[in-house]
Amino acid sequence: MQHSFERLKETQINKNTRLCIGIDPIIERLPFHLQSIGGLRQFCNELFDATNDLCCCYKINFAFFECLGIDGMRILKDLINRISLNVPVIADAKRGDIGNSSKYYAEAVFNYFKADAVTVNPYMGYDSVLPFLEYEGKLVFLLSLTSNPGSSDFQRLLVEGGSHLFERVISLSKNWGTTNTLGYVVGATHLEELKKICSLVDSSMLLIPGIGTQGGNLEKVMDAIKGKNAIINVSRDIIFTSQDENYLEKVREKAQFYKEQINLN
Amino acid sequence: MQHSFERLKETQINKNTRLCIGIDPIIERLPFHLQSIGGLRQFCNELFDATNDLCCCYKINFAFFECLGIDGMRILKDLINRISLNVPVIADAKRGDIGNSSKYYAEAVFNYFKADAVTVNPYMGYDSVLPFLEYEGKLVFLLSLTSNPGSSDFQRLLVEGGSHLFERVISLSKNWGTTNTLGYVVGATHLEELKKICSLVDSSMLLIPGIGTQGGNLEKVMDAIKGKNAIINVSRDIIFTSQDENYLEKVREKAQFYKEQINLN
Repeated sequence: MQHSFERLKETQINKNTRLCIGIDPIIERLPFHLQSIGGLRQFCNELFDATNDLCCCYKINFAFFECLGIDGMRILKDLINRISLNVPVIADAKRGDIGNSSKYYAEAVFNYFKADAVTVNPYMGYDSVLPFLEYEGKLVFLLSLTSNPGSSDFQRLLVEGGSHLFERVISLSKNWGTTNTLGYVVGATHLEELKKICSLVDSSMLLIPGIGTQGGNLEKVMDAIKGKNAIINVSRDIIFTSQDENYLEKVREKAQFYKEQINLN
Repeated sequence: MQHSFERLKETQINKNTRLCIGIDPIIERLPFHLQSIGGLRQFCNELFDATNDLCCCYKINFAFFECLGIDGMRILKDLINRISLNVPVIADAKRGDIGNSSKYYAEAVFNYFKADAVTVNPYMGYDSVLPFLEYEGKLVFLLSLTSNPGSSDFQRLLVEGGSHLFERVISLSKNWGTTNTLGYVVGATHLEELKKICSLVDSSMLLIPGIGTQGGNLEKVMDAIKGKNAIINVSRDIIFTSQDENYLEKVREKAQFYKEQINLN
């Protein structure tokens, strides 16, 4: 099977876009006629059908399915399965535990759900990340500098040696995988740091959330990542664009808008 | 409903033990006659029946159920439901995401699974933790210094201000909750740091893994936590004690051994 990194790059070239559509559905924000468990399933399927020619991958946040229990897990599994046949899927699960446990989280994400890539939290160090990296052909995005306000609490602290914690995550983890297996999450809301990170990561893939609802400046982000391997995620600003019955037209319009701006430059 | 913190303290007093039994089951390590999905369910139920008078709570690691997909989720839900009627349950899920997503992780853990407490990763900062703390009556254990080798990678770094990152997690997060809603995870494998943390946390509850298979020194740990609110977790050394048909006798014996050493001192 093709390596996730290569698959992602290929999809980016074929569609000339770095746009990743984030699927973070909340039942109360779905179109009015789809506000139920069955409606959520229909929404996810229709969203995929209406947008899959406009993005290089989908990022699916597990929180929004886990909160629905087994019903949510069933939708999540079917959705990843359906999408991944055509377009790579990033499991945005932010997992990480001692090695013995991370091994089974990796199995859940890659073997059970069959995602192509996963987001992992670095706090617990190398043995919490390795089990994900050891999965042949998969891609791991380690959190470096996240897009939320709380990223200032610890990630921006200066640590011994003179760098910030989010930089140390990158410099230390570099040897844990290769540029093909290990990428990083950097929020679009931190432009200066994004530029710095671009200079640190060689050809590792960056996953950049924070555009749209979270307020990152797309034009400047596009400028910063010129020539780098990067995926730019937009979630809420696309998927919640309308609650009308004809919501798909508007979703598609919005995705098209982002697709064109988030090109391969 | 009684607050998880109070409930935990009460169970500790009633049983005169701080022992938490960790349920981290791996099918291949279960008793030979239980190595199947159905066997796993039976094992969890029998384990609970045989040990619930010997511990103050159970810590259930979600990784070992998630890897089994929907079958695992079903067992997990029934298990938490069954245990929590009698003894508090800590969902060892190590979640954490931007606020909008953490809210739904909290809903999964507290509303769907109905756990009494949860472990949360601090890397993403305050807004990733608050949604868990906002759940009325629940207890959050924030990772401070974990028991695994990788804890040296980032948690032990000196950060600006002169403390280590794991100490900064404690000092900064103190105001996010109260001593009744916010506790910390500290590995038994770091004795000196455990003592230091004991002096930092007032009456916050500590969750201490790393005894047994991971090699922490129980006697010294017991000494360090004298007079503090602390739970000591033992997982593999109890639950995998035998693969014979009469495994429950041995499991109970081992739990009894730990129960007595891990008393309220």
